[in-house]
Amino acid sequence: MNLNEIKTYFPILTQSVNGHPLVYLDNAATSQKPKVVIDTLEAYYQTYNANPHRGVHTLGVKATDAYEAAREKVKTFINAKETAEIIFTRGTTSSLNLVAQSYVGQFLKEGDEILITQMEHHSNLIPWQQAAKKIGAILKYIPLSPNGTIDLDNVKESMTANTKFISITHVSNVLGTINPINEIVKLAHKQGAVVCVDAAQSVSHFKVDVQDLACDFLAFSGHKMMGPTGIGVLYGKKQILEHMPPIEYGGEMIDFVGLYDSTWKELPWKFEGGTPIVAGAIGLGTAIDFLEQIGLETIRLHEKKLANFALEQLSAIKGISIYGPKNPEQRGGVITFNIDNVHPHDLATFLDQEGIAIRAGHHCCQPLMKWLNVSATARASFYLYNTEEDIEFLINGIKKAKVYFEDAFAI
Amino acid sequence: MNLNEIKTYFPILTQSVNGHPLVYLDNAATSQKPKVVIDTLEAYYQTYNANPHRGVHTLGVKATDAYEAAREKVKTFINAKETAEIIFTRGTTSSLNLVAQSYVGQFLKEGDEILITQMEHHSNLIPWQQAAKKIGAILKYIPLSPNGTIDLDNVKESMTANTKFISITHVSNVLGTINPINEIVKLAHKQGAVVCVDAAQSVSHFKVDVQDLACDFLAFSGHKMMGPTGIGVLYGKKQILEHMPPIEYGGEMIDFVGLYDSTWKELPWKFEGGTPIVAGAIGLGTAIDFLEQIGLETIRLHEKKLANFALEQLSAIKGISIYGPKNPEQRGGVITFNIDNVHPHDLATFLDQEGIAIRAGHHCCQPLMKWLNVSATARASFYLYNTEEDIEFLINGIKKAKVYFEDAFAI
Repeated sequence: MNLNEIKTYFPILTQSVNGHPLVYLDNAATSQKPKVVIDTLEAYYQTYNANPHRGVHTLGVKATDAYEAAREKVKTFINAKETAEIIFTRGTTSSLNLVAQSYVGQFLKEGDEILITQMEHHSNLIPWQQAAKKIGAILKYIPLSPNGTIDLDNVKESMTANTKFISITHVSNVLGTINPINEIVKLAHKQGAVVCVDAAQSVSHFKVDVQDLACDFLAFSGHKMMGPTGIGVLYGKKQILEHMPPIEYGGEMIDFVGLYDSTWKELPWKFEGGTPIVAGAIGLGTAIDFLEQIGLETIRLHEKKLANFALEQLSAIKGISIYGPKNPEQRGGVITFNIDNVHPHDLATFLDQEGIAIRAGHHCCQPLMKWLNVSATARASFYLYNTEEDIEFLINGIKKAKVYFEDAFAI
Repeated sequence: MNLNEIKTYFPILTQSVNGHPLVYLDNAATSQKPKVVIDTLEAYYQTYNANPHRGVHTLGVKATDAYEAAREKVKTFINAKETAEIIFTRGTTSSLNLVAQSYVGQFLKEGDEILITQMEHHSNLIPWQQAAKKIGAILKYIPLSPNGTIDLDNVKESMTANTKFISITHVSNVLGTINPINEIVKLAHKQGAVVCVDAAQSVSHFKVDVQDLACDFLAFSGHKMMGPTGIGVLYGKKQILEHMPPIEYGGEMIDFVGLYDSTWKELPWKFEGGTPIVAGAIGLGTAIDFLEQIGLETIRLHEKKLANFALEQLSAIKGISIYGPKNPEQRGGVITFNIDNVHPHDLATFLDQEGIAIRAGHHCCQPLMKWLNVSATARASFYLYNTEEDIEFLINGIKKAKVYFEDAFAI
């Protein structure tokens, strides 16, 4: 598959918005879906929709096989050791909350320390904040370096004998920073701390190998990797998951149910109470096939090229502040910025009139906004189907916006 | 829309399975989807997929509007007072677990009594069982009458001054029993107890009006009402939901996020952390449109007719045991039975060879199986697209199975 013609695989990208060809640069919020993923959902509902694990009839068997085959694809995709380590959830947020309730809430105690950073998305911040409050654990923040990266010396200094749990984003959804997970995991494990990785912004942008990272948990969402909405994954090491209690009780996660007590099924079903998110999982499986056909290395190179081009072009705009690291090896395809005298919401609204979709706001990162000393930013985020032409549209749009708002400002 | 030709709206129902036209009688597990629901998903992903509540760009606005319009449809469908009372979840199981964690786990205390029945699905049993264990509350069971119904005298007798919470299924997924929710709610409220209704098997089979029922919570799933998998609803009375804490923390359910504490958004978003299940909610909205076009009364009448016909035909089979009430006013379109000398799994496998999909097993109701004194049963469950001809296929299939297994038995 050639990236030059990849847009044709995405029906949504061929449309006009406000009279202009759509330039979709909000990929850190959600990604678009190739036709083949949409077709997978259609085929599921039109030919073999059934409640899996529950029927001996043909449709039920087909649905079960396809659901479990999707799990196998996820396993291979992140190179987990076993399918028992792949739990389907509603998304990254649910995955992280599962860890907060079932691991942190159960196995940490008063005085234990939880380490996170100020660049975390709310989904990888509030669960630990609230769990810490509940159990009397101490939430600590690894300081950020001035360019929005994490210095390993700061990680070392933040750790104490009481550090029991670290959760950290793989790629910041605001700064674009790629964090040194391997090294952090090594430091953490030396200390006996467990590491959880928020991979929402990484797993579909470059190769993520959980055995290589050696992390204990990894969470991500289907919708940010060309899969359907409402499906996500929690990877966990089997020996840890085995000791964790389920947090949602219902059909098919059980072994024996008595009137006053119950026992649970083995992994991974113990954590999947209720009718599974069948179509979501199967659609995610197809998205993984599509990603692997293109190759994660190809995607990483493409996004790096786009980010470099965008950084170069954006830097030439007068009055722009660009956040996050400048070194292309340290960042993904997310670029966050502000322009003097133009509020990011106004910029986004102006660009939308030109058919260009970017995002403006706090990006679910209020503590990071505080660190950046801004109330909001604009953000353009790229994916495999974006092109240099898209970035030229963005640059021209920003220039037009500057003229427009500076004129308005002058009056 | 005419129910006689309704099958043509469901692409999946036009296929052959094992050389026979598909006869799908596993609707209590999951329902099939009309083309219009599948088309809604396709249109969403092909034209306006975006992360709602987060963008000022055109696709984001469209996705937000459609997501909130779906909430409005749910509100009208169950006649809730406000959209603030409609929370989108992953399904009935998630909805009930939310109540268990955020209401029972917070507001009940040691010695308080929780009342349920032995006909509950695991999803409406284990959450309360485990919550009770955690807080030291007492789980009590309202006794069932011999025909598998609930006698209001038994409800009264089960209630004490300590009864604080009752959760009960609207329609049993095994017995087909329709429970007298109105009367139970009246008794409970007189006592000051809160009532939660598991409406997974009712809300798409006859008109459910939460203001008429006066229940405090109502939970149901999209996939059992012709909607997509992975979407469900929790209805709760606003004055109760307002006092309940969120249980999943993440993006967009917050108002202010500080380093060490946070505050939450207003209802219903407080309970919807993370990227919403957008396509699921929108698809559910279309399923509701479809249901309302046909009319819930029409559906109820149709299913009653089918159930009567099936009960009549089944009763004529020698060696059959049919569970649940005989009175058609007291039951929905679910018929559970066993046949002497034929194991339900064998029956289901045999029928599958004839293209007939029924379910066999404990139906996520192990305590009810114990009450029935069986390890498993066979179950045929009907929906609006089933016909008397489908039931004739079932009856003939059962008769063939009896001959087959009795012959096998004789050898």
